[in-house]
Amino acid sequence: MSTANFTNPIIAAGISGLRALYAERAVTPVEAAEAYLSRITGLDGALGAFVHLDAEGALAAAHASAERWRVGKALSPLDGAPIAIKANIAVAGFPWHGGIEAYRSRIAHMDAACVAQLRAAGAVILGLTNMHEGAFGATTDNPWFGRTHNPWKHGATAGGSSGGSAAAVAAGLCAGALGSDTLGSVRIPASFTGTYGHKPTQGLISTEGVIAMSWTLDHVGVHGRSVQDCAHLLAGAVSADVELAGEITRPADLEALRDAPLAMLDLSGLKTIAPQVRAAMDEAAARAREMGLDIQTVVLDFDFQEAIRDGVLISAAESLVEHEDALTANATGFSETYLQTLAIGERAAAPALARAYRNLAEAAAEAREQLTPYAGLILPTTPTQAEMFETAAAAGVALLTPLANVLGLPATAFPIGMHEGLPLSAQAVGWDDDTTLGLAQLLGDTFEAPESYRG
Amino acid sequence: MSTANFTNPIIAAGISGLRALYAERAVTPVEAAEAYLSRITGLDGALGAFVHLDAEGALAAAHASAERWRVGKALSPLDGAPIAIKANIAVAGFPWHGGIEAYRSRIAHMDAACVAQLRAAGAVILGLTNMHEGAFGATTDNPWFGRTHNPWKHGATAGGSSGGSAAAVAAGLCAGALGSDTLGSVRIPASFTGTYGHKPTQGLISTEGVIAMSWTLDHVGVHGRSVQDCAHLLAGAVSADVELAGEITRPADLEALRDAPLAMLDLSGLKTIAPQVRAAMDEAAARAREMGLDIQTVVLDFDFQEAIRDGVLISAAESLVEHEDALTANATGFSETYLQTLAIGERAAAPALARAYRNLAEAAAEAREQLTPYAGLILPTTPTQAEMFETAAAAGVALLTPLANVLGLPATAFPIGMHEGLPLSAQAVGWDDDTTLGLAQLLGDTFEAPESYRG
Repeated sequence: MSTANFTNPIIAAGISGLRALYAERAVTPVEAAEAYLSRITGLDGALGAFVHLDAEGALAAAHASAERWRVGKALSPLDGAPIAIKANIAVAGFPWHGGIEAYRSRIAHMDAACVAQLRAAGAVILGLTNMHEGAFGATTDNPWFGRTHNPWKHGATAGGSSGGSAAAVAAGLCAGALGSDTLGSVRIPASFTGTYGHKPTQGLISTEGVIAMSWTLDHVGVHGRSVQDCAHLLAGAVSADVELAGEITRPADLEALRDAPLAMLDLSGLKTIAPQVRAAMDEAAARAREMGLDIQTVVLDFDFQEAIRDGVLISAAESLVEHEDALTANATGFSETYLQTLAIGERAAAPALARAYRNLAEAAAEAREQLTPYAGLILPTTPTQAEMFETAAAAGVALLTPLANVLGLPATAFPIGMHEGLPLSAQAVGWDDDTTLGLAQLLGDTFEAPESYRG
Repeated sequence: MSTANFTNPIIAAGISGLRALYAERAVTPVEAAEAYLSRITGLDGALGAFVHLDAEGALAAAHASAERWRVGKALSPLDGAPIAIKANIAVAGFPWHGGIEAYRSRIAHMDAACVAQLRAAGAVILGLTNMHEGAFGATTDNPWFGRTHNPWKHGATAGGSSGGSAAAVAAGLCAGALGSDTLGSVRIPASFTGTYGHKPTQGLISTEGVIAMSWTLDHVGVHGRSVQDCAHLLAGAVSADVELAGEITRPADLEALRDAPLAMLDLSGLKTIAPQVRAAMDEAAARAREMGLDIQTVVLDFDFQEAIRDGVLISAAESLVEHEDALTANATGFSETYLQTLAIGERAAAPALARAYRNLAEAAAEAREQLTPYAGLILPTTPTQAEMFETAAAAGVALLTPLANVLGLPATAFPIGMHEGLPLSAQAVGWDDDTTLGLAQLLGDTFEAPESYRG
């Protein structure tokens, strides 16, 4: 199910729909690229989702794609799909700054591995999306490149760090987007914008050519308005030596759900989860049970607070190494707030970092073992909904997302309704990407899609 | 080829020979255990290879093994093999101190995973061997448990950290032994004592139940007087889900050597390598060429000095975490020298540690790529020979061994002759354990075995 039903059928189509429209020659990739570019021109001034546009390059790619569709030689289901790329992922000829002023004028000389894959699949790259500075935060209130507003409420955060990607997808400014997710950066903005966000199994998409926040925890992920769109993007972006179905497992085919119960995280020990999030999760569980699923509430032996603390320490230390040269050459190109975050890594002694790595490795082994009997785990994506920039907490929203990064397991955020005009979201964490996406679709389909965004 | 030809045929037999003697009923496992125990009683006072003996347990295990051989139900080629275990590896009911005073009275409640495997294969455990304190050093000049002397020269170090294991093997005080190797701790004492020492592929032998020096770099390894003995020990100690031939690849079957050249490390940039070591390597290369092998000298793009620096920092930080509780409860149970080494980790900031992990990961990727065209790499095991305790350098001897830990590749140290009464040694580094062991045998066999040790 699409999360937004736009009046323009090209926009409403999403990646999967465009593929069908191209195949039946109802629409050409050039028309689609033009529709998206025009929508960006009209709406992005207020949203702030993009930091770089390449209308010329996109149209050239769209023309080439149109020719392939015309002669029946489309490269993949993504051929002609207008997509956006998060600003920390290298796209040849585009700025490659990761939301950091110090790198504003740096131009990528080659595509990141995942971008090269998408290009080879025929995707049309519209531009780069805004992000939290250095990917290290969840508001996308970027001091150098501006705020990305939530399409559902101007002045509210779209989440982060891949806030621009999620907002662009939600607002219909691209058919899908790449993001990155170290401690939740794809799934948090998916939650806040009522879209789908998938963090794949660790290593499935190469992080080569992505500015590291933490090479230990970084994952490239995908944003879409439907699970199927995410699945196509994932199949297009995976490393060349991996094969994925691309077509997601149909809910009825979810073998895993016939063989094993589905775990639902017990939330009673987690104080910061908002009442409306708890209510939505109860509702999701009830609907899943109505469908005949065996839902079992599980008290997971995993310290969510410690995982985020360890994850932040590891990320701060590894980010400092990643940005070592730039910090020496141009420290003023990093905001005070970002420097303070990085200082968490500078202040810590080496054994504290070693302990953090070990804690996470041990916690992951224990959680994996505890989850072994289950087909998957369902939990909220974020403890709260999007907040206004003025009150949006930098910390706290990444409480429930690091679990999947630490375990290296695939996780899909999916919308489960609205509350006071803003989206609610749950995550499916599973053992393989196809099943996890399938679970998200199965459960997400029990909720009505949010109204479409009209700008 | 055995590295020592003892007059007592039971001792001379080694693991492989005992297996044959047991099978033809020429010797029983009880006679073998008694012969080794008696030799330990006679000789270990001067050597200091053992820190714990279990004559009673060994004889009980030998009796059980004898009964199995009698009824033709031997469990493996190791059944009845009298072996020794390094003191940082848990053996149920034995002290488990890792050469550290703070743990002197700690008794292991269960076997390390590898010990359990060896026991299940029928091995007879004679006792625990001495080691450098905390495995963090290469002299086995242990302030709490005494010095392990080199069997070839009293007053000279046997190397370390698995000095007791290598010395016990060289002196015929056990048929084989387990050691551990974080930056060279199996191979360095193998070099100094003229024995074989094999560090397997990372993860092949579980490190569960081994006191960590560095969980990132730790490997359990094996010591023997022949390659075949090492291969049997390795096959017996590997994790339950791994299958190894146990019988090493016969040199004539070394497919790898027909398909690809063998790299010989160019030593010209390495200033600390002694002239007699260089000469021995030249001799090894000449003999290999005489055998028709395609030997190519390779300038490896790997900073050996930086690797040991990074390895020491990582090990110090991770050791501090491993010993955290004991350091708090009983700091005086750690020597001043050891504490000073650990302080390298305490003094470093978290980003320096993160950088060390990244440096090693990048260096490993580059070296692996550079070695891809070759069947393996031959290099000296140590830059120098064993020195007297008074002059033995703590640093420097682990120059050429960390490479294999960093790459996670198997490495076998093998003797290549004697110089002034002390052994010389080379290492084979390869892509899989069987081929690496086979290479070590092929090249080692071109040299005469050292004279046997008579105590």
